[in-house]
Amino acid sequence: MTFSTRVNETRLWQSLMDMGAVGGLPHGGCCRAALSREDKAGRDLFVGWCRDAGCEVTFDQVGNIFARRPGHDTTRPAVATGSHLDTQPHAGKFDGVYGVLAGLEVVRALNDADVETRAPIDVVVWTNEEGVRFGPPLTGSSAFAGATEVAAVHASLTLDGTTVRQDLESTGYLGHERPGDRRFDCFVEAHIEQGPILEAEGRTIGVVTQIQGIRWSRVTVTGMDSHAGTTPMNRRRDALLGAAEMLVALNRLARDQDPWARLTVGRIEVEPNSGATIPGRVVFVCDLRHPDSGILDLLEQRIAGSVNDIARRSGLEVTIERFLDKAPVHFAGSLVDTVREAARLCGYPSMDMLSGAGHDAMNIARVTPTAMIFVPCKDGLSHNEAESATPADLAAGANTLLHTLLARAGVAAP
Amino acid sequence: MTFSTRVNETRLWQSLMDMGAVGGLPHGGCCRAALSREDKAGRDLFVGWCRDAGCEVTFDQVGNIFARRPGHDTTRPAVATGSHLDTQPHAGKFDGVYGVLAGLEVVRALNDADVETRAPIDVVVWTNEEGVRFGPPLTGSSAFAGATEVAAVHASLTLDGTTVRQDLESTGYLGHERPGDRRFDCFVEAHIEQGPILEAEGRTIGVVTQIQGIRWSRVTVTGMDSHAGTTPMNRRRDALLGAAEMLVALNRLARDQDPWARLTVGRIEVEPNSGATIPGRVVFVCDLRHPDSGILDLLEQRIAGSVNDIARRSGLEVTIERFLDKAPVHFAGSLVDTVREAARLCGYPSMDMLSGAGHDAMNIARVTPTAMIFVPCKDGLSHNEAESATPADLAAGANTLLHTLLARAGVAAP
Repeated sequence: MTFSTRVNETRLWQSLMDMGAVGGLPHGGCCRAALSREDKAGRDLFVGWCRDAGCEVTFDQVGNIFARRPGHDTTRPAVATGSHLDTQPHAGKFDGVYGVLAGLEVVRALNDADVETRAPIDVVVWTNEEGVRFGPPLTGSSAFAGATEVAAVHASLTLDGTTVRQDLESTGYLGHERPGDRRFDCFVEAHIEQGPILEAEGRTIGVVTQIQGIRWSRVTVTGMDSHAGTTPMNRRRDALLGAAEMLVALNRLARDQDPWARLTVGRIEVEPNSGATIPGRVVFVCDLRHPDSGILDLLEQRIAGSVNDIARRSGLEVTIERFLDKAPVHFAGSLVDTVREAARLCGYPSMDMLSGAGHDAMNIARVTPTAMIFVPCKDGLSHNEAESATPADLAAGANTLLHTLLARAGVAAP
Repeated sequence: MTFSTRVNETRLWQSLMDMGAVGGLPHGGCCRAALSREDKAGRDLFVGWCRDAGCEVTFDQVGNIFARRPGHDTTRPAVATGSHLDTQPHAGKFDGVYGVLAGLEVVRALNDADVETRAPIDVVVWTNEEGVRFGPPLTGSSAFAGATEVAAVHASLTLDGTTVRQDLESTGYLGHERPGDRRFDCFVEAHIEQGPILEAEGRTIGVVTQIQGIRWSRVTVTGMDSHAGTTPMNRRRDALLGAAEMLVALNRLARDQDPWARLTVGRIEVEPNSGATIPGRVVFVCDLRHPDSGILDLLEQRIAGSVNDIARRSGLEVTIERFLDKAPVHFAGSLVDTVREAARLCGYPSMDMLSGAGHDAMNIARVTPTAMIFVPCKDGLSHNEAESATPADLAAGANTLLHTLLARAGVAAP
């Protein structure tokens, strides 16, 4: 009875702990920047596990990994799942990794139950979701969706001064397959929520209906370096003070919009960044998110108005360049229904929700029916070594994934 | 006639240009962080010039350089002048360097005029006035004044991971003399004003009567790293946003005080400083200056109240540690009178003023009668590559220095 098939909670947890030890950090988290030595070690570990589980493993030209559990019907496109193994600098053990290892656990559970599916199942590792070591983020899924050229990915420079192509070759993950040549029946990505809502609402499964749009802009504020002791307060052109006023004003703009608007300045560079010099130049990155493109447009206008006002009042110059623009994504209705039904079948309390974070699924949704499954994480905390989730919730998400994939793949007659 | 002795304006200017080429930057400035390779090159150039001018050059245990022009009376303590050769990261050619090379030009002019003084004249280079590559600033003069232990200076770590002692050895500037063992008759430091007042008032010479007190505090703001996309605006503990509010509030506090209060945040470090992560930790340095210690106490109380209020409202923790405290300094009245008289003798319009910047002179004033001579700089600009002064004004300052030193040293009977 495939209805009663369940994943092995202990094995899933153990795999997560084993992967978390690769690039492990002192406070329980890990650091595996894409195509670094640590990321290669994590990939190698995963590939070994997949081969042990009977999967055929291939790579494409940007290092995306496809581990295939064969289906009965060789003509059907694969039902796909997965996420990423690369991490933020101070990451926990679950962001991305969970979606990959939940897919592997589905394969292992189907093996245990001796279930043959009609369609094959592909477990995918997308290259460089986080964009820490080279940019832009979501590289592998973007190439798969045709939004980024392979040549551009290969030419990208990493923080270590290598090109991505060099790293793909040296790590052994440069494949022949063109990204996107492989057709999927659908793609379902499991992930920790990375927010506080499921925990606050007491639900186990988040049925993700859409992903917020994300826009990143670089704001450059130019004043004049001068001496902290001798320059009267009213003769300064202090770029850091101007930037501080902008941060406060931009935060207020987002809060005044609606509960879905999110604005963050996480990165700032100050020149010359010396105690006794009034800073002449500040560059900060403004991360803006909302589920509605129209509201994003409106907020961008208000941001520009606000920073220009502050600059004018303060004798500063300011420029804004948008360098990342991910449109809001609505997932495929019937696939979302299947996820909701799988959670119900397994007896897990669920709720529809949207994703505040960007995910590889937002790229794959351009070319394949796509959905996501969220599970709770402690205090909504992510991009932090203290990121945490329970073995039971992680297994619930994997069971929901299992029955979603089974519903799409179909079971071959025994 | 020593009254008619004058410095060589062209030679002084040329020496300033030659020194400015050491560690030269693209926009006409230079960068010679203390005891760096560039600073060593600058020191070596200066020492060579001094030896060519007949001086005996020695170093003390913290790398302070003393170039002595012998006097007729070997029992008299030296009349001293000088400043520093190390610079800010984006410095001009004049800050500090002018005071050292004006001293050298006095020696050269006395050589040209064949004047023998009674007391010797020492031209001093104080180590690490700026405090860019290691802290605290004003290191060499502080050790000379007995306010900093030699062992503590030697153990300080530089930004390059070396100790100061290692750098003193490798650059060849580790001497045997204990800082402060040498007694001076007086110390007179010439410097560009680094502010706009002389230019605005149309005066050539600033007779400096006092230096503002300076206090540096390290403010550490702790929140929580979390995900920029998924953390609702009202559940964030954003250390950078909190720090931005503090910067705006602190600036207002200083402006509301009086025209002498100066408050600057020039240095800020953000962790993890990644685009998609709400920053969990920010450290900034608050530079506070005022001529009155009582007002400095009051402002520090208000600063603490303000940052604690903001932290409490924002769910952040904050600590303030003061790590530099230079009391306001009043210079020696009779020596200040001598400077004023020297300017009058040379026919330069002068005015009494206070210094907004800290200088080595504020340390030396603890152990020796001390004064300073300011000359105008363009637009009051300093700590900036565009820092500028005219050859005529620089020569006027050096002539005022020459006649101040002559008045103290006395002329040996021909």
